[in-house]
Amino acid sequence: MNIQTKFSDKVKDLEASAIREIFKLLDKPGIISFAGGAPDPELFPCEQLAKAASDVLLKQGKVALQYGVTEGYTPLRNWVKERLISQGIIKDGDFNETIIVSGGQQGIDLAAKSLLNPGDGVVCELPSFIGGLNCFRSYNAEIYGVTVKSDGIDMNELEELCKAHPNIKVIYTISTFQNPSGITMSLENRKKLLELAEKYDFIIFEDNPYGELRFDGEDVRTMKSMDTNGRVVYLGSFSKILSPGLRLGFTSCHKDLMERMIICKQVQDVHTNVFAQMTAYEYIKNNSIDEHIARLRMVYGEKCRFMCECMDKYFPASVTHTTPQGGIFLFCEMPEGHDSKEVMAKAVERGVAFVPGSTTMIDDKAVYSTFRMNYSTASFEQIEKGIKILGDLLKEEVGE
Amino acid sequence: MNIQTKFSDKVKDLEASAIREIFKLLDKPGIISFAGGAPDPELFPCEQLAKAASDVLLKQGKVALQYGVTEGYTPLRNWVKERLISQGIIKDGDFNETIIVSGGQQGIDLAAKSLLNPGDGVVCELPSFIGGLNCFRSYNAEIYGVTVKSDGIDMNELEELCKAHPNIKVIYTISTFQNPSGITMSLENRKKLLELAEKYDFIIFEDNPYGELRFDGEDVRTMKSMDTNGRVVYLGSFSKILSPGLRLGFTSCHKDLMERMIICKQVQDVHTNVFAQMTAYEYIKNNSIDEHIARLRMVYGEKCRFMCECMDKYFPASVTHTTPQGGIFLFCEMPEGHDSKEVMAKAVERGVAFVPGSTTMIDDKAVYSTFRMNYSTASFEQIEKGIKILGDLLKEEVGE
Repeated sequence: MNIQTKFSDKVKDLEASAIREIFKLLDKPGIISFAGGAPDPELFPCEQLAKAASDVLLKQGKVALQYGVTEGYTPLRNWVKERLISQGIIKDGDFNETIIVSGGQQGIDLAAKSLLNPGDGVVCELPSFIGGLNCFRSYNAEIYGVTVKSDGIDMNELEELCKAHPNIKVIYTISTFQNPSGITMSLENRKKLLELAEKYDFIIFEDNPYGELRFDGEDVRTMKSMDTNGRVVYLGSFSKILSPGLRLGFTSCHKDLMERMIICKQVQDVHTNVFAQMTAYEYIKNNSIDEHIARLRMVYGEKCRFMCECMDKYFPASVTHTTPQGGIFLFCEMPEGHDSKEVMAKAVERGVAFVPGSTTMIDDKAVYSTFRMNYSTASFEQIEKGIKILGDLLKEEVGE
Repeated sequence: MNIQTKFSDKVKDLEASAIREIFKLLDKPGIISFAGGAPDPELFPCEQLAKAASDVLLKQGKVALQYGVTEGYTPLRNWVKERLISQGIIKDGDFNETIIVSGGQQGIDLAAKSLLNPGDGVVCELPSFIGGLNCFRSYNAEIYGVTVKSDGIDMNELEELCKAHPNIKVIYTISTFQNPSGITMSLENRKKLLELAEKYDFIIFEDNPYGELRFDGEDVRTMKSMDTNGRVVYLGSFSKILSPGLRLGFTSCHKDLMERMIICKQVQDVHTNVFAQMTAYEYIKNNSIDEHIARLRMVYGEKCRFMCECMDKYFPASVTHTTPQGGIFLFCEMPEGHDSKEVMAKAVERGVAFVPGSTTMIDDKAVYSTFRMNYSTASFEQIEKGIKILGDLLKEEVGE
């Protein structure tokens, strides 16, 4: 039989995440990868988590290894809720419900499944996160792009889009230390986005996995904290502040929408790994996660500044880069006409990898001169070595 | 805003899993629950898993806590593949691909998403597993029911359905120790089902989470083992043989379909919890999972026989039950006209819970005299006490 004739319209034209595919290729030793979006493995609290995991299984194994409730392990869920309240993101007793999900990505997926009919419009930032783009594609949404400028989404462009496309139901934004650009949306633009959401009746997905990783500048209020009308789905994650391997995230949104999302989660994975939730909670109870996060912020700030210094030293002047105030990515741009996909292939041959801009765009077949660089995973030594190799290649490429 | 106006057609009429909702209510102490579908927590290998988890984090923490590949942790994936080969379920080098998923439920969901357009037909067993039913509902499939008799699906009824509904694309069956009935489909019927799949061009979802838990009778070949044409999606799970809290399952199907499912998994949860996968693999490497499964089989066999004995002793004669040869469920039936939902409410008041038949049916609003009983979770003492309470209630109910 030809099974391909059976594929649903939702998935038949989907392509595997180029980043995940790149990730697989990079499993060879020696390569310096700026391609991932992974935390610094040197900073994982392995010993503390080993103790937490062992304690959980020895003392509460019958709970940790058994089925749990879909909404999440109650102590961890309460901890997340209290943290969001203390950060001013939600209010005690407001219309929001907060649950634990199997990584931030699942929050995007559950919200998308609960809201999107085929043909509904989703506005994504240009550039944006491929996991978001592919998720919306997988529900046959119509995806529109809006330019990200140095202070976030271009609000005039967005309003024009909303006027032209009444099918727009969702705006997906990584408002703080955006993936892939590292850019943070200004407070003014956040307020404007909330106004536009009211005016054009759309929902905002505020994806904030990097928000706690600020190493420079001042915090900007989340849109969720200003959401008086239940228009914001807030998406959080333990991946960048503790560990991605544990697949723990959280989502906070209007309780009526959350009710739908919980049902979708029931049919998707029943509930999030109880053992991982309890291990994370045991770790949080017995260690200061804020001290851990402070350490991440310090190291990532140093690495980011070092990568920028190396780029300024080794890259040709015509290749520019953003200068993020937090998070784990910065975004580079070659002069127009150069194809970062081609440069990527050459770079991998020389032992360095990054993510070509095409994978961050809606039309991923076009030629882009942009590329994403991650500075959290590599060591300082690898950063200097890798940027030098890349700088030599870029000089050949742009002819400087 | 009224967020309910924004819900997608897929989810707006979905109802939460009644079983999961019951499960939440049963969190009060003292209640004897035959309602869950959970393993015996006394048999969890807590100490061995604590050692495995701790070893993994201390020796390979940088891998266990980091992002992994969507297809699963390679050593665990290879172990699963080799086990399926050794069990004759797949063949080395055949057209199948095998991946790790976040619990068996995710396998159902990924296959459903990859195959089902709104209005596509899915045939489910009557009774069936609510997690399957709700999953198909969540993709707006048209669900048709086919009666399960003592040797599995009524094949004549199925063929009539296929003739009447050319939109049928998938048949969902738990062919061995079915949830909720405990019934195993005969070899003859399995062969017939494969023939019908060819004749009417449908895909079979063979969900087999209980297959290893046989305590009586002889193994019956899986349909996957006879699948020469890529028509069977095989769904397996670690939940019943190791731990549900770890959320580990596996799926094996035609590689072209699996490619779509992997993309859906990327947008759903990126990959399965690496730490849980490595912990399970470390456990398997250093302990005999077959000895562990043999112990589960022995205890579940004893519990099943004991529950049947108690039912024969305490239940009124007009309430019948199935006698499974494995798995964790049996199915009871009161004389026609009695409503197991009403009896359930009264039973909970007296401190005993089970799952009313309505939650296992496509039309869950009708009156059913059936109910599902789980014998794996409760202790022998609880089984005797609970069945006696239930027997008294049923005698009042049916007037014996």
